[in-house]
Amino acid sequence: MTSLVNNTTTIRPAPVLPSTGALRPLGLDEVAITGGFWADRQRVNGEASIRHCDTWETRVGWIDNFRHALDGTVVQQRTGREFSDSDVYKMIEAMAWEVGRTGDPALEARIVELSALIGRVQEPDGYLSTKFGRPGQEPRYSDLAWGHELYCYGHLIQAAVARLRTGHDDELVAIARRAADHVCAEFGPDGRDGVCGHPEIEVALVELARATGERRYLDQAALFVERRGHGTLPDIEYGREYYQDDVPVRDATVLRGHAVRALYLAAGAVDVAVETGDETLLDVVRDQYERTLARRTYLTGGMGSHHQDEAFGDDHELPPDRAYCETCAGVASVMVAWRLLLATGDAHWGDVVERTLFNVVATSPAEDGQAFFYTNPLHKRVPGSAADPDEVSARALSRLRAPWFEVSCCPTNVARTFASLGAYLATVSDDGVQLHQYAPARIATTLGDGRAIGLEVETGYPHEGDVVVRVTQAPPGEVTLSLRVPAWAVGAATLDGEPVEGGVATARRTFAVGDEVRLSLPVQPRVTTPDDRIDAVRGCVAVERGPLVLCAESTDLPGGLHVDAIRLDPSAPLVADGAGARGRGRAVAHDDADWPYAPEPRERDADGFDLRLVPYHAWANRGPSTMRVWIPTT
Amino acid sequence: MTSLVNNTTTIRPAPVLPSTGALRPLGLDEVAITGGFWADRQRVNGEASIRHCDTWETRVGWIDNFRHALDGTVVQQRTGREFSDSDVYKMIEAMAWEVGRTGDPALEARIVELSALIGRVQEPDGYLSTKFGRPGQEPRYSDLAWGHELYCYGHLIQAAVARLRTGHDDELVAIARRAADHVCAEFGPDGRDGVCGHPEIEVALVELARATGERRYLDQAALFVERRGHGTLPDIEYGREYYQDDVPVRDATVLRGHAVRALYLAAGAVDVAVETGDETLLDVVRDQYERTLARRTYLTGGMGSHHQDEAFGDDHELPPDRAYCETCAGVASVMVAWRLLLATGDAHWGDVVERTLFNVVATSPAEDGQAFFYTNPLHKRVPGSAADPDEVSARALSRLRAPWFEVSCCPTNVARTFASLGAYLATVSDDGVQLHQYAPARIATTLGDGRAIGLEVETGYPHEGDVVVRVTQAPPGEVTLSLRVPAWAVGAATLDGEPVEGGVATARRTFAVGDEVRLSLPVQPRVTTPDDRIDAVRGCVAVERGPLVLCAESTDLPGGLHVDAIRLDPSAPLVADGAGARGRGRAVAHDDADWPYAPEPRERDADGFDLRLVPYHAWANRGPSTMRVWIPTT
Repeated sequence: MTSLVNNTTTIRPAPVLPSTGALRPLGLDEVAITGGFWADRQRVNGEASIRHCDTWETRVGWIDNFRHALDGTVVQQRTGREFSDSDVYKMIEAMAWEVGRTGDPALEARIVELSALIGRVQEPDGYLSTKFGRPGQEPRYSDLAWGHELYCYGHLIQAAVARLRTGHDDELVAIARRAADHVCAEFGPDGRDGVCGHPEIEVALVELARATGERRYLDQAALFVERRGHGTLPDIEYGREYYQDDVPVRDATVLRGHAVRALYLAAGAVDVAVETGDETLLDVVRDQYERTLARRTYLTGGMGSHHQDEAFGDDHELPPDRAYCETCAGVASVMVAWRLLLATGDAHWGDVVERTLFNVVATSPAEDGQAFFYTNPLHKRVPGSAADPDEVSARALSRLRAPWFEVSCCPTNVARTFASLGAYLATVSDDGVQLHQYAPARIATTLGDGRAIGLEVETGYPHEGDVVVRVTQAPPGEVTLSLRVPAWAVGAATLDGEPVEGGVATARRTFAVGDEVRLSLPVQPRVTTPDDRIDAVRGCVAVERGPLVLCAESTDLPGGLHVDAIRLDPSAPLVADGAGARGRGRAVAHDDADWPYAPEPRERDADGFDLRLVPYHAWANRGPSTMRVWIPTT
Repeated sequence: MTSLVNNTTTIRPAPVLPSTGALRPLGLDEVAITGGFWADRQRVNGEASIRHCDTWETRVGWIDNFRHALDGTVVQQRTGREFSDSDVYKMIEAMAWEVGRTGDPALEARIVELSALIGRVQEPDGYLSTKFGRPGQEPRYSDLAWGHELYCYGHLIQAAVARLRTGHDDELVAIARRAADHVCAEFGPDGRDGVCGHPEIEVALVELARATGERRYLDQAALFVERRGHGTLPDIEYGREYYQDDVPVRDATVLRGHAVRALYLAAGAVDVAVETGDETLLDVVRDQYERTLARRTYLTGGMGSHHQDEAFGDDHELPPDRAYCETCAGVASVMVAWRLLLATGDAHWGDVVERTLFNVVATSPAEDGQAFFYTNPLHKRVPGSAADPDEVSARALSRLRAPWFEVSCCPTNVARTFASLGAYLATVSDDGVQLHQYAPARIATTLGDGRAIGLEVETGYPHEGDVVVRVTQAPPGEVTLSLRVPAWAVGAATLDGEPVEGGVATARRTFAVGDEVRLSLPVQPRVTTPDDRIDAVRGCVAVERGPLVLCAESTDLPGGLHVDAIRLDPSAPLVADGAGARGRGRAVAHDDADWPYAPEPRERDADGFDLRLVPYHAWANRGPSTMRVWIPTT
């Protein structure tokens, strides 16, 4: 059991700062991405996406909801769903990290402006919602299943933690503390015996406890984790598993129900386990997540097979065409994997973070950062239509990326993740630095034993596999530099020319300024086969290149071919081609249209052609197309 | 163009009676199923299912809704969804056919009782709904998209047509005629320019026109068919294709959107085309349905791939595990195929009727006729739990068959279909009788040229393949007896010892009483492969036996095997076994639980065993189980 108070880690600018654990995360003041794939996305996020969110939240009235709460017209004029307040908070969180990263004065001013507005809406006892509690509205907490009040507080608190950790103990922090205190009073051991229909408050309260040293927030988070699974929420068509109220967290064996809900809860449970020293709880949640990765996760790292309830399917139920793979579930899965990495020190969680960031989170935004995928299927049979730039879209329509959604959780989730992305690159231990994600970067930090160290990372990753880590400030004595070796790179990675084994390449020595450690990862295209229990992609292979999942997009196919007509010859070599690959394809002729079931497989004519494959994250940026990740073999 | 008036076909007891077309259907007074598979189901339907529906509609208050409409408390006390009236009407339709079939006096009394109640609720201008139009309720037709008022009239009218055709020009008929007249006045050429969000009124109005000779009902049906597809209904998350308001019927190329809606509309459009002599419309709808069968239909004949919107998926999007295959879509598909058979005389539509009846409609009810499947997936990965006999279930929960549903369209749809099933067995032409479905039966009818003929059918079909048709009343001169040869029986069927070619076996001669025609259909088990565009079942085969789709059910597997662990050796012989089959299976060991994607397929140990396969329609009658129709090959 550790004490949260006086823990110096609590003031670094990083989204997750456990007071204990195997590895210590870096703050954004200790690590910066300086170029390449992720720097491009951070730049577009700061220049375009965050402002795009502000423009749309203003346009659809979700910010005005707070104004109308003040002028007495909110009952008549409120817009958006029950949880629209949360998207304002998530946007502020993104702004806060961006201000921490770049000092952007316009975003800083906007945070102050919005905080002042939100503060005036908060009631004297800390309650805060534009949706409930006023005359003409439903009473507070009258609908815990769907009301999302605690979920909204959670995002408010995460935004406030971002402010605290980036040096602003400001109005937003005061609002969030009042809200958190209100939650502790209202839902404490002697209060309402309820949980929110959408987990999120748990993870937020732990981080607030870490950031403020206030133990009661942790206790309340732990209480919420333990309270769930006892059926206090109503039974619904999808069953109580939809909001994980079917089985207590400690008794569950796999993540189930609504994917984002399940993953936010898992993240909160890990946080509670770490801060209370509850290794049993940590093991249980890790086992659930591992089983989820083994049986309920797409090649992209995406999670969620069901459109109807945005939920996990059964084990091995992973249809590529109806993959839901909500962008927010990708963000949430990164949250869980990162927390497990910090808690256990096991580098392989970095593989999950990497896969999910490159293939789910990076897939969502368009190149200009002003349109987003809400769902991320691995197979598109009918070309999507271009979204109207003035249209508020439904979630999973047959559209290309859309500027905004009726439920618009994903754009702000991408924005807050990208703005704080540097924090996921590396960690420190007592006498070493661990690199988890590869990007051109500068690191200047202090080891657990107090020695300062500076590093510079040079790489063309993920399109090139060489990573050079150069020492820019050398600590006295020996230190260990650890570089994650992704599981897909086993047998091929080399460090300083030596073969690398296991999931980590390490170099322990006394370094001088200018010393280099080199890792060479094999990013040539490779074929991947699915587990034979995943019925939906039997007889298919995918092509991956480094951490990138590739796909065939009709845009690249000759003669207007549909992706459903192509086959891949697995015996022909795959060659790198730009960020993607080329292989040998066969185009199958389909000209019949009768009953599709027959005693013998139909003979098909097939012509060979050069099959181009592009990174999945880049698909649908060149107009409407059909697409598939899993390609039948010849 | 034909005249509906004075058409003598309009008074036979049959659910579909076109005034013209290639073949004339028989009434229930001309044909009776005397034994076997379907006689069992008709008996259980009459003895149990219809009464079960009455019990539940009483219990959940849907019948009392009419009483509350009279006593002024309906605003406070109404239960059920917007369309609950329709299930009362569908139950009455089932009762009406059952009375026509058996003369059941208790059901006759119940029809009279319910008709009196319903008649008192009808307003003077013919409007009839327990849901709309009273003080405290929404106004009439204020929500055409979801209000279902016209849909409810449609089922009311079909019930009334059943009464008319079974010899009762009674109160229910008067109610339905007043409702239909009201619809013509309200939605006629000069009335509201709207359509119902759920097609059904179209098919009902045509049948009422046929039964009454009133041309205006046909004109109104034609107007509704033409009006749809012009976007008068609101755009929704699923798009206007959900209710087929995206594209005019004449411009569409495939069925799409909500499956039951699409199929009811297609049935109505065929009826309009037939009665107005519009061959263009008939061809268009037939082409849509043929393309739907080729690309959007499960092996069982089931339709609908999406749970979220109960809709067709894209072409070849046919996941067996998430197959929705609503029972009502099966009933509706039989409606369309039967109408096309009558219109075109093409016997192959009988294949679709047969496949869908045996593998979708017959799958829904439990053996005791008191529990039903709403959805009919082809793969069940997690055993369903037994439904609480007192529970009103959601539609597609992980349950075994359930006694009743919040939306309980399926039980009454099965009931009305089974009660009128005899009408689908055979047709007549000017000088012949056509047998479309094989069951022990008696037929006594009149050819189009006025000659009387009697036939008796003996068969153990579908479990045995021999069909004997014996002449019991011989007409003077030559007649043609035509027996459908299912597509799956090509190359194997024989008639009187001769090989049969094509989809029909015919015998034309002068028959004497006692003469027999014999057809021998090969009902030994056979392997079926899917079209290579159906990704979800690639690498799998199914086993069929005659018209029956078989499945592996964990109940029959040795040592508690899960169906996902089994493989079928396609080189080993399949042998008949009871109503099912036996083949050679392999049980694959799955003991790993890590990342399920790898460069090479995993080696699996596999033990051989005798694999028993049972008829799909019979699955889940022996307690919770896992099940799959499509089985991976070794």
